[in-house]
Amino acid sequence: MEKVIKIGLLGLGTVGRGVYRILEENRENIQRRAGVKLEVKRILVRSLEKERGISIPNDYLTTNINDITNDPEIKIVVEVLGGIHPTLDYVLEALNKGKSVVTANKDMVAQHGQRLFKAAQNNQCDLLFEASVAGGIPIIRTLKQSLAGNCIEEVFGIINGTTNYMLTKMSQGGCEFGDVLQEAQAKGYAEADPTSDVEGFDAARKIAILASIAFNSRVQLNEVYTEGITRITADDIAYAGELGYNIKLLGIAKDRTEGIEVRVHPTFIPKDHPLATVGDVFNAVFVRGNAVGDTMFYGKGAGELPTASAVVADIMDAARDIVRNVPGFIGCTCFREKPVLGIGETISKYYIRLKVADKPGVLASIALVFGNKEVSLKSVIQKEATGKTAELVLVTHRVQEQNVQDALMDIKQLSSVLEIANVIRVEGEK
Amino acid sequence: MEKVIKIGLLGLGTVGRGVYRILEENRENIQRRAGVKLEVKRILVRSLEKERGISIPNDYLTTNINDITNDPEIKIVVEVLGGIHPTLDYVLEALNKGKSVVTANKDMVAQHGQRLFKAAQNNQCDLLFEASVAGGIPIIRTLKQSLAGNCIEEVFGIINGTTNYMLTKMSQGGCEFGDVLQEAQAKGYAEADPTSDVEGFDAARKIAILASIAFNSRVQLNEVYTEGITRITADDIAYAGELGYNIKLLGIAKDRTEGIEVRVHPTFIPKDHPLATVGDVFNAVFVRGNAVGDTMFYGKGAGELPTASAVVADIMDAARDIVRNVPGFIGCTCFREKPVLGIGETISKYYIRLKVADKPGVLASIALVFGNKEVSLKSVIQKEATGKTAELVLVTHRVQEQNVQDALMDIKQLSSVLEIANVIRVEGEK
Repeated sequence: MEKVIKIGLLGLGTVGRGVYRILEENRENIQRRAGVKLEVKRILVRSLEKERGISIPNDYLTTNINDITNDPEIKIVVEVLGGIHPTLDYVLEALNKGKSVVTANKDMVAQHGQRLFKAAQNNQCDLLFEASVAGGIPIIRTLKQSLAGNCIEEVFGIINGTTNYMLTKMSQGGCEFGDVLQEAQAKGYAEADPTSDVEGFDAARKIAILASIAFNSRVQLNEVYTEGITRITADDIAYAGELGYNIKLLGIAKDRTEGIEVRVHPTFIPKDHPLATVGDVFNAVFVRGNAVGDTMFYGKGAGELPTASAVVADIMDAARDIVRNVPGFIGCTCFREKPVLGIGETISKYYIRLKVADKPGVLASIALVFGNKEVSLKSVIQKEATGKTAELVLVTHRVQEQNVQDALMDIKQLSSVLEIANVIRVEGEK
Repeated sequence: MEKVIKIGLLGLGTVGRGVYRILEENRENIQRRAGVKLEVKRILVRSLEKERGISIPNDYLTTNINDITNDPEIKIVVEVLGGIHPTLDYVLEALNKGKSVVTANKDMVAQHGQRLFKAAQNNQCDLLFEASVAGGIPIIRTLKQSLAGNCIEEVFGIINGTTNYMLTKMSQGGCEFGDVLQEAQAKGYAEADPTSDVEGFDAARKIAILASIAFNSRVQLNEVYTEGITRITADDIAYAGELGYNIKLLGIAKDRTEGIEVRVHPTFIPKDHPLATVGDVFNAVFVRGNAVGDTMFYGKGAGELPTASAVVADIMDAARDIVRNVPGFIGCTCFREKPVLGIGETISKYYIRLKVADKPGVLASIALVFGNKEVSLKSVIQKEATGKTAELVLVTHRVQEQNVQDALMDIKQLSSVLEIANVIRVEGEK
């Protein structure tokens, strides 16, 4: 109980402050549970002058990374700076100096994971990154340990809080995308430049990490098919409701014999699916294993303390390994090389909304095209005509996506079809 | 990758077969992930003759426990026999012989945990028991590791599948307890003697284990206030719906400054709470930590493969510790001694259903008694009189239970009150 492990913290933004606060406020529990005292020794900041709203001894702060990487007393480096440059260099340097690293940086892990794991392995250090996906939800440790006896078949979930907040509001209020985005920005849930969230890029990084761990095969970020929520309209949400679904932006990964499906897009989810009622900024990840069956893990995906909670759990694991003298034992788990399938190879059901001329025979000509491409339809709703146009809402049975895309190419050519208003995949049904 | 760890399996019932099957079917994944080959060497059974519907080499089976505990090659003993005698002796013997133990036995862990942990510690072995609570939900590892940086404030959840199935059916069909019990028995979800499930004893064992881990203070089984679902009627369920709640049998544990609240009873849960929509035989555990906020973990609570999935994860953890030569490092985590509060000290809201004479002044006299005992009412519904009686449905604000009990003692004496039909605690509201 006498032993102390010293920590170097890179960054003192929202999450950094959260980590410092938790280590202070929950000090006794943490020490008893980790079996060792944990102390922050140095903190890398950009400016020594900035007001931070937290009381930290002045000599903890430094603007020089070498004060941390060259300090042999510091055994664990916690990276909450974000970004790739210069962060990646700092982290590699720390690993090469034999320090275990805990990071919350999904960009870096998704893009440079392989290099980082190699450095960790070469130097017998831990590299832990629970906080990089879905902050407060301990999904990485769950996949790596608790469900390790399973072959994981599917992982999918709501892994971006901003878009979940927006879709929740749209479905409650019947509002359009633009209005809800403004509201989310006003509340601080969406950034001034919301691209990374609303275009699905943030979720893509996270599902790349989750798929790599679940299926033990590295998924590169550029292999993730990514589609955001900017084209979702109040009409789509209303139709979803009518058909018994909610619309959620999901990250989806499935292990198929031929390869791995991995994609991010707006998705119809049946209203009685456990993910359907996950609202506001909450995240939830659904996992199906061949032994455990269906499981779901729910919590806050971001925020100072939820994210810091995950960082601190990783710090404690790294500390236990250091005390037991076994860091670096569990390294990279990508021992397979499975191809990632193209989006055309996806197998799914599809919701398709078409604007068509309101005249006899239109439905027949459309149904004929789908039939020719072997796409069979589960339901068709024809909506009240406004003037000379009508709206057709179709839901298909399970089919390979290429067939749907081929059919839509032909349908676009039909003179009676004015617009393919939206195509949304359907998930979570038997 | 050459190393093999040999396992002794105690019991070849439902879960035992599941463990054997997973170790066979997921062999490659398990070996790669654990970093070592896992092989069942001997299996303790009652009879060598019994038909088991699974192909196992004959020389694996034995009726003699010494063939396992005295075999130095067996490093991990997996206990899926159930019961206390002779199981407890077997497990203690295995620990005393230096073998790590994985158990799914909630009775044994809840009643004899302290003795078992002591033996594990003395012999530097792992004692792992993820499968003892909520089968497929990795809640114990989550509390011990993933949320270790938090002070856990509350743990509550649906931890008995049989009663959740029954309450789900009652709320869907408007049926009474007896009918639903028969259906559950016919489907094999309830046992011929359903006492342990419907009286809440099974859930009590599990919440005793969860509370001990979450709050780092041992909760004894006999300290858990326990109330089953036998008194829940279709009327209660209908009123719950009308008031915006579902009724669930919950295990509830809260860490308060004065002590620990720990109890099992039917509970009103708001319909928009994540636990409210957990149906059928599914389990879900809700955890609130001072850093992570609200989290929930959902999955199958029982069954051959979900439970075996948890057992296999524990086997893999034990195996990793053996390979790294660090078994027994994380032992008992009950480093505190906090008192368990009596049920009268509970702080909650209460639903109270009274049968009263249908005449003027009755409500006033009842409200006066509650007022005298400082119980303030949130809502009152007076229901249609049938003949000369009426039904009063009250929901209180948060108050100490003793005040409610005192008020009810006085209310019972009122000549206009015919019956206190039910009192149900309300949880999960702000």
